[in-house]
Amino acid sequence: MKPNWLMLVLGVLAVPMAGRADPARQLLDVPAKALPVPTADISPGMQAIIARPLNPDWNKLWKTGEEARAYADTQAAQTVKGIPAMLERLHVKSEASTLDGVRVHVITPETMPDTNRDKVLIHVHGGCYVLFPGESGTTEAVMMAGLGRYKVIAVDYRMPPEAYFPAALDDAITAYKAVLKNTSPSNVAFFGTSAGGALTLEMVLRAKQLGLPMPGAIAPGTPMSDVTKTGDTFHTNEQVDNVLVSRDGFCDAATIVYAKGHDLSDALLSPVNGDMHGFPPTILTTGTRDLLLSNTVRVHRKLRRAGVAAELVVFEGQSHAQYQFDNTLPETEEAFGEIAAFFGEHLGH
Amino acid sequence: MKPNWLMLVLGVLAVPMAGRADPARQLLDVPAKALPVPTADISPGMQAIIARPLNPDWNKLWKTGEEARAYADTQAAQTVKGIPAMLERLHVKSEASTLDGVRVHVITPETMPDTNRDKVLIHVHGGCYVLFPGESGTTEAVMMAGLGRYKVIAVDYRMPPEAYFPAALDDAITAYKAVLKNTSPSNVAFFGTSAGGALTLEMVLRAKQLGLPMPGAIAPGTPMSDVTKTGDTFHTNEQVDNVLVSRDGFCDAATIVYAKGHDLSDALLSPVNGDMHGFPPTILTTGTRDLLLSNTVRVHRKLRRAGVAAELVVFEGQSHAQYQFDNTLPETEEAFGEIAAFFGEHLGH
Repeated sequence: MKPNWLMLVLGVLAVPMAGRADPARQLLDVPAKALPVPTADISPGMQAIIARPLNPDWNKLWKTGEEARAYADTQAAQTVKGIPAMLERLHVKSEASTLDGVRVHVITPETMPDTNRDKVLIHVHGGCYVLFPGESGTTEAVMMAGLGRYKVIAVDYRMPPEAYFPAALDDAITAYKAVLKNTSPSNVAFFGTSAGGALTLEMVLRAKQLGLPMPGAIAPGTPMSDVTKTGDTFHTNEQVDNVLVSRDGFCDAATIVYAKGHDLSDALLSPVNGDMHGFPPTILTTGTRDLLLSNTVRVHRKLRRAGVAAELVVFEGQSHAQYQFDNTLPETEEAFGEIAAFFGEHLGH
Repeated sequence: MKPNWLMLVLGVLAVPMAGRADPARQLLDVPAKALPVPTADISPGMQAIIARPLNPDWNKLWKTGEEARAYADTQAAQTVKGIPAMLERLHVKSEASTLDGVRVHVITPETMPDTNRDKVLIHVHGGCYVLFPGESGTTEAVMMAGLGRYKVIAVDYRMPPEAYFPAALDDAITAYKAVLKNTSPSNVAFFGTSAGGALTLEMVLRAKQLGLPMPGAIAPGTPMSDVTKTGDTFHTNEQVDNVLVSRDGFCDAATIVYAKGHDLSDALLSPVNGDMHGFPPTILTTGTRDLLLSNTVRVHRKLRRAGVAAELVVFEGQSHAQYQFDNTLPETEEAFGEIAAFFGEHLGH
């Protein structure tokens, strides 16, 4: 389309108006500050987690699946060392298995309330779509099984370099379809944190596309619901969140590796852009220092605007996902207790 | 008690341990930054409010009730000019009256759903216990009456220099007692924002002390629940919140004037310190840039830990109380819509 005289006139008018009226152009200068560690209503163990210096690996900017996987494998070797003690402490069994070809861990508490026996939770782990392969991705599932007393299927979805978008989502949906063979959808919940929170939302969007039934409830924890760096706390909590640290850090790089050229604003990568009408009851969890606080509250608002029963939990002082960093802390018990109570209220209807 | 040798030994040991182990001593350095105005999922009108420069009066540090009142009167004269148009637009009537000697405005929507006819909401306005005298304190009550279609009694409580702590709370409780003469407590709700959010919580604590029945529900908006400057977002959102701006600003000075030497950590001034067992269902509202985000989420966590049905609404990008700055914005409709729906669900049981 060629410019005509009207467009030129409007163009001339638009320049001064945009300069004056577009609020996005105005910047608020915030001076440097030194933040003390908050202590009120926070356990000593969580205070120590909040007091940690910035994640030293925050600016590892992997360019390939192989690079990301090398880091992931080293980290996973450390993570799995802590799992036997966690299983013992929480009285939970974990067994590697497959569901229609998808690798899973089946995680079962030693004892379960009768009302939980016909329920199945499907867990999708976090780690920016590249971290926590194999058993290292099951820690949150173990906490949920142990603290919430539910059977959990933890999906060990394919990650780069084994596979790229939408492999993680495909594997999670395959697991859901397999669970549906023996379980009523109203007795199934999805949950996960960070990339797992995004996958939880993406599973529901994908289930809608495929005409699959809705699960009974979902619990996306601090979801990577917008990976286009859109959201106010990407700015306000930059270098305040000691886990993710920056919107230009490892998690952004990892997501670009996983997306492999796919449009990052696609609702199956940035689920805040999806249509949330008809979503099941949803409980969201985040913290006041979380870089993804905005990613979380935007989903909450969007769900509520769509008429969905949705609850929001915000922990004082916590950065990204810290409510599941240490299974022995009261905040961890509280976070999973809230989710378990929400599932107890909404599953089975 | 005199120190003995054991205490001295422990004292010597305590010094290096405290230096190493006390997380509150560690500071996180956050560099200066320039924040863009967030736009995603935010109406243009709210973007303009978020884009405003820092409140130019943020560091007015009144020392006396007279000083604060002079400012309040000037501000009130401006505020009341907008009220007739708001009443007309929202189809609401407002009438000055008294209830057992307490000044109130009775605010009634032209039409009401049948289920709301036997319900009464008691409103306590904000303004750091010194601002918004007379009709200027009714704007939020008018929005609630108009957007929620409930009858609202707005309490024009005494403020400095007319009276000091606990006069505001006493007046609000007198109004509650008067309402109870004709209304079942389960049909009564309390609500308010900022100091009004704190007063909402303080009214419930005081009702417990006095053995009065609990109201059916409450809606404290971004409550001044801790006026001892405790709470993480007093730091993280300093000079990010363009309304309150700083924990050392006008609102702190005003509260000290109102408290007139009373202990600021008393639960009737810092209600986060109160015992919240037995509280009625509660919905809390705040924003990601709110200096009182922590004051709000700490109350939410404390209520949930006490087993209370409590919901949290966090608006993207908003600073303190901005969800009630402009009655024509979709975010305002949404905030009062959430509260009205919550009251609809919980009142009358």
